[in-house]
Amino acid sequence: MNAISIDIGGSHAVCAVVDDRSILASEAVSVGDARCFATLLPDLAAAVHRALGSCGIASANCAGIAVSFPGIVDPLSGRIFSTPKGKYDDSNTVDLPAWARESFGLPLRIENDARMALLGECYCGAAQGLDDAVMLTLGTGVGGAVLSGGRLLRGKHLQAGLGGHIPVLFHGRACICGSRGCVEAEASTWALPEICRAWPAFAESTLAREPVLDFAALFRASAAGDPVAVAVRDRCLTVWASGAVGLIHSFDPEVFLFGGAVMKSAGQILPFLERYIHTHAWTPWGKVRILQATLGSDAGLLGAIPLLTETRL
Amino acid sequence: MNAISIDIGGSHAVCAVVDDRSILASEAVSVGDARCFATLLPDLAAAVHRALGSCGIASANCAGIAVSFPGIVDPLSGRIFSTPKGKYDDSNTVDLPAWARESFGLPLRIENDARMALLGECYCGAAQGLDDAVMLTLGTGVGGAVLSGGRLLRGKHLQAGLGGHIPVLFHGRACICGSRGCVEAEASTWALPEICRAWPAFAESTLAREPVLDFAALFRASAAGDPVAVAVRDRCLTVWASGAVGLIHSFDPEVFLFGGAVMKSAGQILPFLERYIHTHAWTPWGKVRILQATLGSDAGLLGAIPLLTETRL
Repeated sequence: MNAISIDIGGSHAVCAVVDDRSILASEAVSVGDARCFATLLPDLAAAVHRALGSCGIASANCAGIAVSFPGIVDPLSGRIFSTPKGKYDDSNTVDLPAWARESFGLPLRIENDARMALLGECYCGAAQGLDDAVMLTLGTGVGGAVLSGGRLLRGKHLQAGLGGHIPVLFHGRACICGSRGCVEAEASTWALPEICRAWPAFAESTLAREPVLDFAALFRASAAGDPVAVAVRDRCLTVWASGAVGLIHSFDPEVFLFGGAVMKSAGQILPFLERYIHTHAWTPWGKVRILQATLGSDAGLLGAIPLLTETRL
Repeated sequence: MNAISIDIGGSHAVCAVVDDRSILASEAVSVGDARCFATLLPDLAAAVHRALGSCGIASANCAGIAVSFPGIVDPLSGRIFSTPKGKYDDSNTVDLPAWARESFGLPLRIENDARMALLGECYCGAAQGLDDAVMLTLGTGVGGAVLSGGRLLRGKHLQAGLGGHIPVLFHGRACICGSRGCVEAEASTWALPEICRAWPAFAESTLAREPVLDFAALFRASAAGDPVAVAVRDRCLTVWASGAVGLIHSFDPEVFLFGGAVMKSAGQILPFLERYIHTHAWTPWGKVRILQATLGSDAGLLGAIPLLTETRL
């Protein structure tokens, strides 16, 4: 089955044509500082046409258009309820299903990017064929998504599974969500510089001389034995692991996936997470499989077929 | 619709006959230190017959038997996977559906006690008619249950919604579940004495003279202005509230219920929880309703009809 898959990100969008579990063609579109979603639509349509042309598929031979979006969305109506800060301010007035019908004669479904990535991983990635999975995406923020009994858990207001916003330190740092001590506030790329700079003896750490205080820098410095970097790294690992234990106790999955850009340092992350979770999670039935996501930035695009064929939304 | 409803607790069991949303008759059975579930079954059968007799209902006019059990159970097969410590050691060998068939000619379903209480509250209690609810039961431990889209969230291994075992302090106290800093380890009746005794200046607190260090004592002392009691109380309230925020971000409900024996002091609990949760939970769609459970110890019995009529287990 063919489909058009569009992954809208913070800096660029990717328009692709997929055939079941593979991407036949893809075209990137710069989003720049697009505050306006409506003006982006002609660029997306042109990129879709280029992608269709380059693999010789007609839109009439596609089952539909799947859109991955970084916000809270309604898959069927196509409505967008929340967007990244300062982006796509007009998105709640855009009628995406109408655009898809008029531009391509196709139905459209939209889903949150963290959920699309999980759909992709369960369809053809690390969790292929599994029905009960939780995923945390470690990056600028910490995204979360839950598949339970083969169905995406969406919640009453379409915002279930906010895995990065589970407090693991009830008196902790203020989070962008309004709460305190969330996994994201205690261990994410946006929070890391502040966490490092507040650490005792930061000034003597090699981290103090890093131009960019991200996890790549942190893992470099901790691998080299810098004591502050080791301490901050171990704290971040414990935050992610403790949050994962809470999500396992909440959702009772068979597999737990970690994805996102931070997992480029998976060698320093995954063994710790697996050991901690297997020691601390109460799972008398056995052990939750702890896996790295394998599809990277393709995961959201490859969620297209499961989203478009989902029957029990 | 009539049904037989059996609520098995730690010290006694209650056998009742229900008619939709009301309890027609009930009989208590002392459980004592029953290590053996099989020897309890004749007592339960006798109590059921007494209850049926006292309201003049024949078992043939009942839709089935619903059992509320304090452990992990499989509703359809009737299998019991985990039990309270030192209780019912033989329960994984007991065939409850066979017992119900042979003793009463009726089908039987069993469910975890926290989930039964939530079913009852959503059927005829504080959340009557609502489909998306989370409940925390504050007592000796902290129980949790989730109704999502009108369905109990059970998880792959029937242990989803362990709301008391969400870590809110990643480096916190060891919990009985094997994790650290769970809501239950930081604020429950079993954890409270240790938390109080470890508090600075505990020796000067009126709490040091309490024969039983439970929440009733804590709320008495905090209401009288004892500074240690006020500090411990506020910490427990924040733990519950922070855990609730995590559960709201996980499950996206419309209503959050607090039940359990600790809620006898609801006047000192609910206003704090409501204020904290409404300030800290990210719910752009509106506000989660924060409510006290209203059915008390009847909640589990009144979950009978929704359990027995559930069609999508």
